[in-house]
Amino acid sequence: MSNEKIPYKIYLEEKEMPVNWYNVRADMKKKPAPLLNPGTGQPMTAEELNTVFCEELVKQELNETDRYIEIPEEIREFYKMYRPSPLVRAYCLEKKLGTPAKIYYKFEGNNTSGSHKLNSAIAQAYYAKKQGLKGVTTETGAGQWGTALSMACSYFDLDCNVYMVKVSYEQKPFRREVMRTYGASVTPSPSDTTEVGRKILAEFPDTNGSLGCAISEAVEAATTHEGYRYVLGSVLSQVLLHQSVIGVEAKTAMDKYGIKPDIIIGCAGGGSNLGGLISPFMGEKLRGEADYRFIAVEPASCPSLTRGVYAYDFCDTGKVCPLQKMYTLGSSFMPSPNHAGGLRYHGMSGIVSELYDQGLMEAVSVEQTEVFEAATAFARVEGILPAPESSHAIKVAMDEALRCKETGEEKTILFGLTGTGYFDMYAYQKYNDGVMTDYIPTDEDIKKSLDQMPKL
Amino acid sequence: MSNEKIPYKIYLEEKEMPVNWYNVRADMKKKPAPLLNPGTGQPMTAEELNTVFCEELVKQELNETDRYIEIPEEIREFYKMYRPSPLVRAYCLEKKLGTPAKIYYKFEGNNTSGSHKLNSAIAQAYYAKKQGLKGVTTETGAGQWGTALSMACSYFDLDCNVYMVKVSYEQKPFRREVMRTYGASVTPSPSDTTEVGRKILAEFPDTNGSLGCAISEAVEAATTHEGYRYVLGSVLSQVLLHQSVIGVEAKTAMDKYGIKPDIIIGCAGGGSNLGGLISPFMGEKLRGEADYRFIAVEPASCPSLTRGVYAYDFCDTGKVCPLQKMYTLGSSFMPSPNHAGGLRYHGMSGIVSELYDQGLMEAVSVEQTEVFEAATAFARVEGILPAPESSHAIKVAMDEALRCKETGEEKTILFGLTGTGYFDMYAYQKYNDGVMTDYIPTDEDIKKSLDQMPKL
Repeated sequence: MSNEKIPYKIYLEEKEMPVNWYNVRADMKKKPAPLLNPGTGQPMTAEELNTVFCEELVKQELNETDRYIEIPEEIREFYKMYRPSPLVRAYCLEKKLGTPAKIYYKFEGNNTSGSHKLNSAIAQAYYAKKQGLKGVTTETGAGQWGTALSMACSYFDLDCNVYMVKVSYEQKPFRREVMRTYGASVTPSPSDTTEVGRKILAEFPDTNGSLGCAISEAVEAATTHEGYRYVLGSVLSQVLLHQSVIGVEAKTAMDKYGIKPDIIIGCAGGGSNLGGLISPFMGEKLRGEADYRFIAVEPASCPSLTRGVYAYDFCDTGKVCPLQKMYTLGSSFMPSPNHAGGLRYHGMSGIVSELYDQGLMEAVSVEQTEVFEAATAFARVEGILPAPESSHAIKVAMDEALRCKETGEEKTILFGLTGTGYFDMYAYQKYNDGVMTDYIPTDEDIKKSLDQMPKL
Repeated sequence: MSNEKIPYKIYLEEKEMPVNWYNVRADMKKKPAPLLNPGTGQPMTAEELNTVFCEELVKQELNETDRYIEIPEEIREFYKMYRPSPLVRAYCLEKKLGTPAKIYYKFEGNNTSGSHKLNSAIAQAYYAKKQGLKGVTTETGAGQWGTALSMACSYFDLDCNVYMVKVSYEQKPFRREVMRTYGASVTPSPSDTTEVGRKILAEFPDTNGSLGCAISEAVEAATTHEGYRYVLGSVLSQVLLHQSVIGVEAKTAMDKYGIKPDIIIGCAGGGSNLGGLISPFMGEKLRGEADYRFIAVEPASCPSLTRGVYAYDFCDTGKVCPLQKMYTLGSSFMPSPNHAGGLRYHGMSGIVSELYDQGLMEAVSVEQTEVFEAATAFARVEGILPAPESSHAIKVAMDEALRCKETGEEKTILFGLTGTGYFDMYAYQKYNDGVMTDYIPTDEDIKKSLDQMPKL
């Protein structure tokens, strides 16, 4: 089909939709380091993990060998409600930039959660239901994950208790209402409903909260209530596994039209969207079948890959979670409250960290005013108002396309457009009013946080 | 293809997308009554209309004979960015209701304007650009139309001045920010920027505003500024023409799979989505080729079809627009401020009014708490958070499906899901908190308003 004019949007047919998730660890010679028990310093066993997570998800977390893991039929049925997501050819953006580059984006925002998060939320809710649980607890930052999980739980009739980072809870009351509409209960974090929350509040009464802190509260809530488990929207390998549906669909669509991307770009907070998008392409690279440039884009205000260290660290502020080896700024790192949107996690997926450490991918950081500038330009020509998170990838995709304009190279660029910005208008307003500011942590800020990391 | 299992979502391919709009007036034996000059009481001429509207749009407004009007290529290109919209089989809703009915919805919400309004906005902006205008003015109620128009104007590099009904401007600051992001200027109406606005403010200083009032301001702004014209998002026949793309796509998709709807349902404010959705089906009915039940659903708080009169009336509060024969509550009718979302216009499309008057379609009114109850139930199973407007159609579609459950009839129901509710969380919050109320105007309320209608 390679001679056909590429449509604006490529939708796979139902019968072409993935039946397997792709587990990139199976193709990694050097695997990500194991999760460690913070008490003993020993690798976490399935038994230990089962007290926090659903059993089937623990199996997936520890599975480093099976390349393909079948997507259960119930999940595939749910996927059919909002997937396949379109692979879009950005004809209008190309024209505006005057670039010879061909730009594609995989758009994950056409569902009510507004992002790719639903891909993993429905899987995690499914396994929780299958295990006979009453409900799940979780944290949410910008709100996409909490929304996605509340949708998934409502579908499977599970309780859903969301700890929402306080600053987001206040800046995004409407996100909270979407979660409530789907039947979830939403608590601003840190809260006085958990021991760890009370402790953090006592120490930092004016804190804006952080993902690391909300995680601690959600884990405590899960482990102290019968019939509940904790679920997480990023960072974990199981989440990247579920998110591989993005990459598998994108690759299937591109293969169908004979398109081979030269550069693949994704924004990176905890790494779930980036890891999911690049997985099958990275698999080819790992197997020596093809080569691609991969670029992770993170905010300059929370630059774990570009300015963090690769070491074991706590995943949460309360230090109740397993230790993970990852690129990290230290679990006590708190991004500036002027930072809009998600991507405010101090660490990074273990898989993404290991791939980055092996030199298989690049990382860059960008400042938020330039991100909103790119977002606005994109919105005006492509007709989609992007989430601030996704706009990090847009910014770098536009930069790469402009570089092609200089060199005359007709590169093919694929980026992940993870979601829509409908609940980020507070940040857009700041940008529209010309009062948005940037913030880059000083070396001293980062050192202070890194000094508090566990010594192993 | 009729033996194949119907997919959850039917997307037409690019090459199957409509190349013509369908003009239902061509198949109406008795045409809608002409627009009248409020000064002379005589039918408006093209010359007169050209001072307010773009020339090509005036031609379309007056064209009662051409069944098909070609969609210009530039507009078809833009349509490809966000269309075709999916025709969705509501498998999960059917299962939840336990109905033998087959429910389909045409979902117009997957674009940043959040609704079908973009279909006409891009057409109107295109013709304005083609005429060499500097910009356009318009009104917006709930904000969808203003957002759609700002997107369209940004695409064609036109000025866009939006008068936004004051209560919406205050309840929906984020809608305003989306419009600003697309470069529009947004003024709460009534405002002191126009003569008619100042007059209304002097008489009713505490008014919440209304569509009728915002229209007056936008028309005045267009006619008093060189190089500007006024554009309208509903009611006019040209708008229904553009919105026929919804119905033509839906019918093409249904025909492709051998599906014939028994009942077609749409929410009705000014009638643009309803008219667009039903047009090609109504054409078959008018030509005697097929029969369908059509149901218009309006809010009990603004019931123009079910409780209004069919007569010539002013389209706007300031009485500057042409007179239109339509079902109306009187141009001074103001829906209660407790009414959420759009569908707050006092009148109705002339085409829809005439079809209704000829007994070719039915109309019902529903109260908003039952609408939000249906919206929430729908969101939880179908994964889409619907706009309050669209949820009027959901409510009646569910009622019809439940009726099928009682009778055992396997009817096929098609309804228009015009948009998403992401900017309506203020109303959802009221519903979630159990403090949403209903309002039904008394006969006295309506009589008072009808008494102020023009006597012709």
